[in-house]
Amino acid sequence: MSSSIRLTVPADSLFGPTNLPYGVYSAPGRAPRVAVRYGDHVIDLAVLLGDDVFARPSLNAFMAQGHARWVEVRAEITERLRRPVPAEAVHDLDAVTLHLPIEVADYVDFYASEHHASNLGRLFRPDNPDPLTPNWKHLPVGYHGRAASVVVSGTDIIRPAGQRKGPHDAAPVFGPSTRLDIEAELGFVLGTGNAMGESIRAEDAERHIFGAVLFNDWSARDIQAWEYVPLGPNLGKSFASTISPWVVPLLALHAARVPTPVQVPAVLPYLRMEQPWGLDVDLTVAWNGQVVSRPPYAAMYWSPAQMLAHQTVGGAPSRTGDLFASGTVSGPGKEQRGAFIELTWGGTDPVTVNGRQRTFLEDGDEIVLTATAPGADGTRIGFGEARGRIIGCERREA
Amino acid sequence: MSSSIRLTVPADSLFGPTNLPYGVYSAPGRAPRVAVRYGDHVIDLAVLLGDDVFARPSLNAFMAQGHARWVEVRAEITERLRRPVPAEAVHDLDAVTLHLPIEVADYVDFYASEHHASNLGRLFRPDNPDPLTPNWKHLPVGYHGRAASVVVSGTDIIRPAGQRKGPHDAAPVFGPSTRLDIEAELGFVLGTGNAMGESIRAEDAERHIFGAVLFNDWSARDIQAWEYVPLGPNLGKSFASTISPWVVPLLALHAARVPTPVQVPAVLPYLRMEQPWGLDVDLTVAWNGQVVSRPPYAAMYWSPAQMLAHQTVGGAPSRTGDLFASGTVSGPGKEQRGAFIELTWGGTDPVTVNGRQRTFLEDGDEIVLTATAPGADGTRIGFGEARGRIIGCERREA
Repeated sequence: MSSSIRLTVPADSLFGPTNLPYGVYSAPGRAPRVAVRYGDHVIDLAVLLGDDVFARPSLNAFMAQGHARWVEVRAEITERLRRPVPAEAVHDLDAVTLHLPIEVADYVDFYASEHHASNLGRLFRPDNPDPLTPNWKHLPVGYHGRAASVVVSGTDIIRPAGQRKGPHDAAPVFGPSTRLDIEAELGFVLGTGNAMGESIRAEDAERHIFGAVLFNDWSARDIQAWEYVPLGPNLGKSFASTISPWVVPLLALHAARVPTPVQVPAVLPYLRMEQPWGLDVDLTVAWNGQVVSRPPYAAMYWSPAQMLAHQTVGGAPSRTGDLFASGTVSGPGKEQRGAFIELTWGGTDPVTVNGRQRTFLEDGDEIVLTATAPGADGTRIGFGEARGRIIGCERREA
Repeated sequence: MSSSIRLTVPADSLFGPTNLPYGVYSAPGRAPRVAVRYGDHVIDLAVLLGDDVFARPSLNAFMAQGHARWVEVRAEITERLRRPVPAEAVHDLDAVTLHLPIEVADYVDFYASEHHASNLGRLFRPDNPDPLTPNWKHLPVGYHGRAASVVVSGTDIIRPAGQRKGPHDAAPVFGPSTRLDIEAELGFVLGTGNAMGESIRAEDAERHIFGAVLFNDWSARDIQAWEYVPLGPNLGKSFASTISPWVVPLLALHAARVPTPVQVPAVLPYLRMEQPWGLDVDLTVAWNGQVVSRPPYAAMYWSPAQMLAHQTVGGAPSRTGDLFASGTVSGPGKEQRGAFIELTWGGTDPVTVNGRQRTFLEDGDEIVLTATAPGADGTRIGFGEARGRIIGCERREA
């Protein structure tokens, strides 16, 4: 005889019935399976709903079933949680291990914040009258990254090594990065994709994007600066990116949808949106426990619908499990900058963290991204956290 | 009772006993499985060797078993083919369908030809005294591409659409690419990778690289030119790349190993090689049946061992199924250039193809890459072909 329990969640929980994010957990000694978070309970969905698509180590099989099924399952979960649930479906958050929730197929990182792109333009190309490159307001600039480097919150980040060459160095030197940085972003998980030669229109993005995660695109600025001309970042970005374990469904973000900033010049027709696609998500960046920045996602120039429409408009195929991230979220204010290179203006204007003047990351530093957004019925919903601690690299020749 | 047959292959076959490339085939109505090519025979390896690791739709499971097993299996195949083999293991090449041989994990494209990089530098940055960027001789420049866009030879290539903006245009326009090009390359298939935070030394590359394929990195030059600053190519390259169906084992390329060009300035220690890592592979590019270029792989500046060492030296993880391509193979001669943008000098110096003056690709054009290399015992071995035909795209708004 299995017992049932009635679950309750505090009214002010960020993980109440209006959120219901999906993740992958394992109980001690058990295989990873899909779950939904409800308060601080982790609910096994294969047990709750009796559907083996959830008895798997990633969300991919469920996501591949498509938008109509996502709507249906969310309604089923909501309904089931109003009644007592089987005790064997319920775990305490503290008692389980959380895993990477998706098998990442292709990963693209965009550059969608005008404030971020402008700040980097001023820092890197100070002689240019316009801090933005000529293409920036016409298309969401993005590049492909390394899918294998995406890790779940809590994974230690090993400081990368590589070549760097300062402006006054005669030759490049090799060693651990001396300008290790973060980028506070949101990542968007593609539930279903498009065949080669087809595309996804901005107005249809709603039916393809499954949900959103926190995303920290750890960046080695010294390595990146030396390598990135002419083909873009490689080793400066490919060592690790951290995502939060809970995928907040796009279906939970209706109340967070706001207009994006007015786009001037007008975008080409394939980038036009019929609905507001900005997201009123407030991020926080904590450095060794101290909040140093509060980037507002609502300030982002390019929307996720536009990123997806652009990425596929040329006929590039996309797949279940694709992950595209927004690029650093930065607002207009100094304390809204989502990367330390901006926050400390290239390392020239330190911030005080726990009483010390700081610029880039030292070994032992821990960064935690969090975020909240408006949920349905006047609630707020949470994204959990994307946490990572820097570990030194001992090896590496000179 | 199953019958046996003794297979023979002409002495001058490019697929004799010194080659034995791996691929994935399907007989009519059957599931894809791993095979080896022997002359024009396709040999089912699960049947031949009685090992179910080959009864799968990709080489990945076999590759993941590691270098010692690759050596062992190659010896077993060689030995088995000297004796009669079960008739049910043998198919005619013409009677089967060939599939993408690997599940592509992460895909990186390098830029390893000095001739190619110099030509493009002269074309795109004519005011620079040095056609190469300052980093080019210090590290193999590369960027991540779209794994989902890798297709097998014979797949039609749908002309991509996108934004382009000529130097005299007031604003970008949208439409099908008008400067669709090829890049004749070799691709290298990673058999086993490295964990995050670790790396693969150049001297160990031998034990990680499983084999090589032909690679055509179709490129939309107009889209690429407008989008690529500052984060590198995206839509200009992410719509399709074609690989040959047969993976030539690195073990078959011993006789093709030659020294790479002398590297000046000297490379950093992590890029030094103890063995010759150039590959004396002769490529051909046929445009609607007419050979227009013969790029020599032996002229490549950076070797695959250096590409792999560089890609992983920062701690970026790599996996079974990773694919890294060389970038366009171009030699010093005009008829050795592996991309039409070079061969026609930016479209200003057409080539004559079947009596017509041609620059970039038109709908209906077919490109076939082939290659041969020295094999053991004075033989030559072949790579098969990477074939693709351009199909127009009708849709696409203005």
